[in-house]
Amino acid sequence: MKKLINHPDEVVTQMLDGMVKAHPETYKRLEGTTVLVRRNKSSNKVGIVSGGGSGHEPAHAGYVGEGMLDAAVSGEVFTSPTPDQVLEGIKAVDQGAGVLLVTKNYTGDVMNFEMAAEMAEDEGIQVEQVIVNDDVAVEDSTHTTGRRGVGGTIFVHKIAGAAAQEGKSLDEVKAIAEEVIQNVRSMGVAVSPAQVPGSGNPGFDIGENEMELGIGIHGEPGMETIEMTSADHVAERLIEEVLPELEVKDGDDVAVMVNGMGATPMMELYILNNRIHDLLYDKGINTELILVGNYMTALEMSGASLTVLKLTSELKNMLHKPCHTIAWNKSE
Amino acid sequence: MKKLINHPDEVVTQMLDGMVKAHPETYKRLEGTTVLVRRNKSSNKVGIVSGGGSGHEPAHAGYVGEGMLDAAVSGEVFTSPTPDQVLEGIKAVDQGAGVLLVTKNYTGDVMNFEMAAEMAEDEGIQVEQVIVNDDVAVEDSTHTTGRRGVGGTIFVHKIAGAAAQEGKSLDEVKAIAEEVIQNVRSMGVAVSPAQVPGSGNPGFDIGENEMELGIGIHGEPGMETIEMTSADHVAERLIEEVLPELEVKDGDDVAVMVNGMGATPMMELYILNNRIHDLLYDKGINTELILVGNYMTALEMSGASLTVLKLTSELKNMLHKPCHTIAWNKSE
Repeated sequence: MKKLINHPDEVVTQMLDGMVKAHPETYKRLEGTTVLVRRNKSSNKVGIVSGGGSGHEPAHAGYVGEGMLDAAVSGEVFTSPTPDQVLEGIKAVDQGAGVLLVTKNYTGDVMNFEMAAEMAEDEGIQVEQVIVNDDVAVEDSTHTTGRRGVGGTIFVHKIAGAAAQEGKSLDEVKAIAEEVIQNVRSMGVAVSPAQVPGSGNPGFDIGENEMELGIGIHGEPGMETIEMTSADHVAERLIEEVLPELEVKDGDDVAVMVNGMGATPMMELYILNNRIHDLLYDKGINTELILVGNYMTALEMSGASLTVLKLTSELKNMLHKPCHTIAWNKSE
Repeated sequence: MKKLINHPDEVVTQMLDGMVKAHPETYKRLEGTTVLVRRNKSSNKVGIVSGGGSGHEPAHAGYVGEGMLDAAVSGEVFTSPTPDQVLEGIKAVDQGAGVLLVTKNYTGDVMNFEMAAEMAEDEGIQVEQVIVNDDVAVEDSTHTTGRRGVGGTIFVHKIAGAAAQEGKSLDEVKAIAEEVIQNVRSMGVAVSPAQVPGSGNPGFDIGENEMELGIGIHGEPGMETIEMTSADHVAERLIEEVLPELEVKDGDDVAVMVNGMGATPMMELYILNNRIHDLLYDKGINTELILVGNYMTALEMSGASLTVLKLTSELKNMLHKPCHTIAWNKSE
């Protein structure tokens, strides 16, 4: 696959510098690290730190800003950041009220964020961690024990970020983050793979007339390889897989994310949403918010994922609070 | 190429419905048309209408909203909308202060928007038109007489939209739109093509180790097929091609757009920006604003374009006014 890069070893550092140069009012990069932190801090609030392997842009650095994250820690492509990098992020955002780590459920991330939390606690910083595991496609994949964390992570950023911005305590912010995790489910589909810079091959093989249902955001195998089918049928299948555990019913409110995997035209995402919206509407489910776009990607993978978050009144309240980040910008 | 669609004949109508269903607070679709109009109108202002072929999403419907467009008219993929559709858009947004049409310089668009303007004038609506022709790559291509209109169109939407929102007259809004057009230049590069839904073939052929410099947003031939090269070299070449006519010099202010063609990972756009920013900085040019993302795409084409707008103090003032659209959202 052709890439507009310089050298595979430099992609993360040059990307981070390119982000700071585009948005100097939003970010600064902690010197000698892969950590982007908010330039304008709000005082005395709980800090929120997320991160993970690179290649999922705008996740996670795109969500750093007022009302969402205080820092994002980037690993190499599809590789967890090391504990010392995460520790730098924690130390940079702690203001005495403690720090919440939002981690996607991948073995490396969970281990490294946990280790960083312990190191920070040794330095007297109060740290809590939540693990996002919203992908209903597979239990125990090549990268994970249990379910993977994917697009639902963005709703955790939004709602925990709003709660922190409101001045809630670390325990309260953690509790609402856990509530989002309990109520959010996702599944994805891919029609073409991504390739890690410098690797010789795409992440998976797929036939000319096939798609992979239940794909992960690193090209991990999905639950089923199926024949290419219509957008409407894909929408129906994703809804069928995502909804049951949420037990949403007539009259419930949900937030929806129709997420592009990186190389999917907006046109296709809106065509998917056209059917997804109607399937929910027909069940009497109220779509309080629908996000359509590239929120949690996998380099140049082509495909889409559906995330549904069942809303309580508190989650709804936090969802509608303003946030100012490069990837999700919402006014009062 | 694999597409998440239903039937090629339905892509535009289902996309538009999917947009309205995702953003009901932003849009409504004029019944029986391909026109999306702002739901909450500002009163007594000049109306701004743009549009063109579909496949360039988020352009143009993504820029409908406060401070930018009042309506967007969508044609079939890569095909101009018909004059009667454009006329519907004009009629829907006129509030007595007249309507400005922002048209990209393609033969079909210019002819059909012009015809719509005449029809509207016959109905007593005052209409003016500006033609955006910012692409420095080629004069007279397969689709155009003169230069093509590409990413610079978004800056015309932003600045003319802000001027209209401020209550300026039709002549004043047209004059500032013309000033943007005088001061904006773009060029693109593609590494892989797009394919119109239902057509048998990609828009152009390109070798495994080649890239097309000066590509248009419909896969029109560029100025030169070159060997794949580094992101830094691409950045340097784009800057070399785009800057000269603008006569920017030490101390000047510019706005920059590093635009993805549809399938380009954000990582690559930020790596390009890392070098583009430095090249401008080294010349003493102040980057007042840098946009990085998918603003004017070509379906699943992979590649990027650079747009540079030289700012006067009035253009800068209008650039920083708030706007509220799904693709460009800026607070006070």
